[in-house]
Amino acid sequence: MNNDTLLIGGHEFHSRFILGSGKYSLKLIEAAVKDAGAELITLAVRRANTRAEENILDYIPEHVTLLPNTSGARNAEEAIRIARLARELGCGNFVKIEIMRDSKYLLPDNQETVKATEVLAKEGFIVMPYMYPDLNTARDLVNAGAASVMPLASPIGSNKGLSTRDFIQILIEEIDLPVIVDAGIGRPSQACEAMEMGAAAIMANTALATAGNLPLMASAFRQAIEAGRKAYLAGLGRVLTRGASASDPLTGFLHN
Amino acid sequence: MNNDTLLIGGHEFHSRFILGSGKYSLKLIEAAVKDAGAELITLAVRRANTRAEENILDYIPEHVTLLPNTSGARNAEEAIRIARLARELGCGNFVKIEIMRDSKYLLPDNQETVKATEVLAKEGFIVMPYMYPDLNTARDLVNAGAASVMPLASPIGSNKGLSTRDFIQILIEEIDLPVIVDAGIGRPSQACEAMEMGAAAIMANTALATAGNLPLMASAFRQAIEAGRKAYLAGLGRVLTRGASASDPLTGFLHN
Amino acid sequence: MNNDTLLIGGHEFHSRFILGSGKYSLKLIEAAVKDAGAELITLAVRRANTRAEENILDYIPEHVTLLPNTSGARNAEEAIRIARLARELGCGNFVKIEIMRDSKYLLPDNQETVKATEVLAKEGFIVMPYMYPDLNTARDLVNAGAASVMPLASPIGSNKGLSTRDFIQILIEEIDLPVIVDAGIGRPSQACEAMEMGAAAIMANTALATAGNLPLMASAFRQAIEAGRKAYLAGLGRVLTRGASASDPLTGFLHN
Amino acid sequence: MNNDTLLIGGHEFHSRFILGSGKYSLKLIEAAVKDAGAELITLAVRRANTRAEENILDYIPEHVTLLPNTSGARNAEEAIRIARLARELGCGNFVKIEIMRDSKYLLPDNQETVKATEVLAKEGFIVMPYMYPDLNTARDLVNAGAASVMPLASPIGSNKGLSTRDFIQILIEEIDLPVIVDAGIGRPSQACEAMEMGAAAIMANTALATAGNLPLMASAFRQAIEAGRKAYLAGLGRVLTRGASASDPLTGFLHN
Repeated sequence: MNNDTLLIGGHEFHSRFILGSGKYSLKLIEAAVKDAGAELITLAVRRANTRAEENILDYIPEHVTLLPNTSGARNAEEAIRIARLARELGCGNFVKIEIMRDSKYLLPDNQETVKATEVLAKEGFIVMPYMYPDLNTARDLVNAGAASVMPLASPIGSNKGLSTRDFIQILIEEIDLPVIVDAGIGRPSQACEAMEMGAAAIMANTALATAGNLPLMASAFRQAIEAGRKAYLAGLGRVLTRGASASDPLTGFLHN
Repeated sequence: MNNDTLLIGGHEFHSRFILGSGKYSLKLIEAAVKDAGAELITLAVRRANTRAEENILDYIPEHVTLLPNTSGARNAEEAIRIARLARELGCGNFVKIEIMRDSKYLLPDNQETVKATEVLAKEGFIVMPYMYPDLNTARDLVNAGAASVMPLASPIGSNKGLSTRDFIQILIEEIDLPVIVDAGIGRPSQACEAMEMGAAAIMANTALATAGNLPLMASAFRQAIEAGRKAYLAGLGRVLTRGASASDPLTGFLHN
Repeated sequence: MNNDTLLIGGHEFHSRFILGSGKYSLKLIEAAVKDAGAELITLAVRRANTRAEENILDYIPEHVTLLPNTSGARNAEEAIRIARLARELGCGNFVKIEIMRDSKYLLPDNQETVKATEVLAKEGFIVMPYMYPDLNTARDLVNAGAASVMPLASPIGSNKGLSTRDFIQILIEEIDLPVIVDAGIGRPSQACEAMEMGAAAIMANTALATAGNLPLMASAFRQAIEAGRKAYLAGLGRVLTRGASASDPLTGFLHN
Repeated sequence: MNNDTLLIGGHEFHSRFILGSGKYSLKLIEAAVKDAGAELITLAVRRANTRAEENILDYIPEHVTLLPNTSGARNAEEAIRIARLARELGCGNFVKIEIMRDSKYLLPDNQETVKATEVLAKEGFIVMPYMYPDLNTARDLVNAGAASVMPLASPIGSNKGLSTRDFIQILIEEIDLPVIVDAGIGRPSQACEAMEMGAAAIMANTALATAGNLPLMASAFRQAIEAGRKAYLAGLGRVLTRGASASDPLTGFLHN
């Protein structure tokens, strides 16, 4: 397990829990990062850019890698602009592309996402695109130079869990990049299940922000994700579709 | 979290993972107990009774409480007899009642289980009955003096997961004893989900025995169970049935 | 299909949709029976007994068989009393046993149900017991002389659907009596699914009473139940767990 | 119900069951059409084009509208070519666009499908595109002039059912064209459920071809689809997330 690292764009991570920061106060971020054991944290570029007294960057520990996202972008051009701005602001080379046309379900625009990925990858960014889990798009993202794919589990912020289960499974089997499940994961058990399926990492934000106790939920997610990873590596047992199997096959019925 | 102990029959446990031992070799038991962090381990009385060179008891660490089970019993009378034998053999006061009439699905006989519980509770046993998750039976078990109820998730050994989800939820809400989910849990994510629902503990055996790597799977279950417990205590976030909620509500669309 | 009749206690039915009448006005019953194509309709004995101006029996067509139920009974004794009263009132030999201890989830008391079944079967009743889907209880009901078993799909009146799916499937496979799914079926698709699994008939009441248009929903259930029956008889196709299969295997890719 | 017609490209249909013909012999087509009550039937253009002794068109009744599909096309250009060929062969103006890049999961290529739709709609075709259920693509198809959208339920030929349930529901709510669920529907209950959600029609092929009795399964699907449509029009009842509701609220417990 010690050597089980996650590689994204040549960078090595030990944690498989990527934290969103958009839905809770700056004061909670430090605790969340610590309890989540996160090494990657997303933040909206605008938030980094705020000239307010408080700067989100002050709350993020040194060893944590920033993953600026392009939230607010409605097309490739806007996403590209935000990504470049993030780099200028000193946020580094990682970028999570989020492009949404639709304001009700906030579903990613796959086609524009491919376009932005292509441009930014060429500019040396480590591009992690948020996407609707469509195998054809995932292949286009691979060709465009993405460093991972980040399919949604269900609509963002919904806490509905793995609505796209079957198609995320297909991505895991067919795509030779880390598949990071992003958006819609509402409970640690759902994160655990995605990891058991072979997902490379989990991104969560709303599930923590809407929990009764954010740091405790961060810790719960951390453990669930580690558990799912171990189960994947250990190899899950077979499932019986019919019948049962005695808990103690060494002992039969008493009188037998 | 440190004070979050599980009380069964006046005994205090820190672990919420109860280990079954019936499906793997004695040599693996020690590792499994350690990696699972288990403080309670079930074993078939016949197995303890074996005059073979190897004795299962030699493989169970001192601090671990034995939970002898009555597997092989087909009615209350046989279960009572096995329980008394276990006590005579020095297995202590705990007993898990398992009574099965049916050899295909191995479903517990609720009515006989209530009878055996009543007799054994009066004899000072700490009775943990394995049961089919029927609210009326659970109430009868409370009245009969059970120290917990142990409803099945799905047929024993099936690894099918929470087929009885809705009815286990009812037990958790209505029964004032620890509800320990037993039988059928096949993956850590399923154990985690049961804990999120408010289960007091999880019992697993086949899921470990059929895993590719038993000790690693034991460790995965341990973490998943802890994660589910934390999530339950933290309070799960709300689920949106429709729509979505922006990951970063502080930033709107770029041009807004 | 014409010879595909449902036999209950030696009586032959062509319809596999049993109608509940407890949740809507007498005026709607006639339409419901007609649109449902029902040949069996349950009614609470007290309702038949009412000395009010309106009598439910006036609204039930001649060719329809009455299935008085013992709703309100809390134990075997009460159920037996109600059943006998029903026969005295001229409701015939059919009786649906409903015994509930619990007023929140209204779950049937399996043990008392077995007792009442035994007594009433000996008295010549055609006994159709409402039950919690426990295989051991179902076997006891067979031995007690039941003419069918009526397991619940989910708590009565909940419209939640097949929460007990896996255990109803076990009853269908193991029990040599018609398995009639009763309680909790909320949509025609759920009734259809139960029939595809091999259920002998479906009973519904709340799903109709809470629909926007009761007669139209009655007709929808009728068709869905017939469809499920046909699918069961036709033999369902295999399910691929992985991959796909071309819609037109006769034509390959264009250039192949 | 009599006025409840399905409008596609200005054409009115009374049946909401679209039949695929690619997976069974010509001899079965006539029976299938009759038992399914189908008014629209897809066929691969190559199959219509066959110079063999048997011509599929001879087996399709006069009143049935042909829906040639572009199966075998790997991009927009190929699909356009096949569509034009179909019109030349006398197959009419309807065309179902199927464009697949991937030969394992046979998932439609949304982007190429939008391109082909735009060209063919301008040429006067009534374009019914098979698609992966992505809301953004569905909006693009509306703008491109599609007459309906045909999202997949699960991988074609898999009989896995409504894996994309949540996203088809979003299309139904957001898209102002008939949403026809195509691919993956394996059982009548699944077709019924999609119709209850508000789908406009169902397309099936493999579910029939792999059934034990094809004409009987065709009839089962027909009824299930009608049932689901009626349930949608009638208005489904509410679902209780907790608790139950007495089947006969007019009668309380006996002694009350």
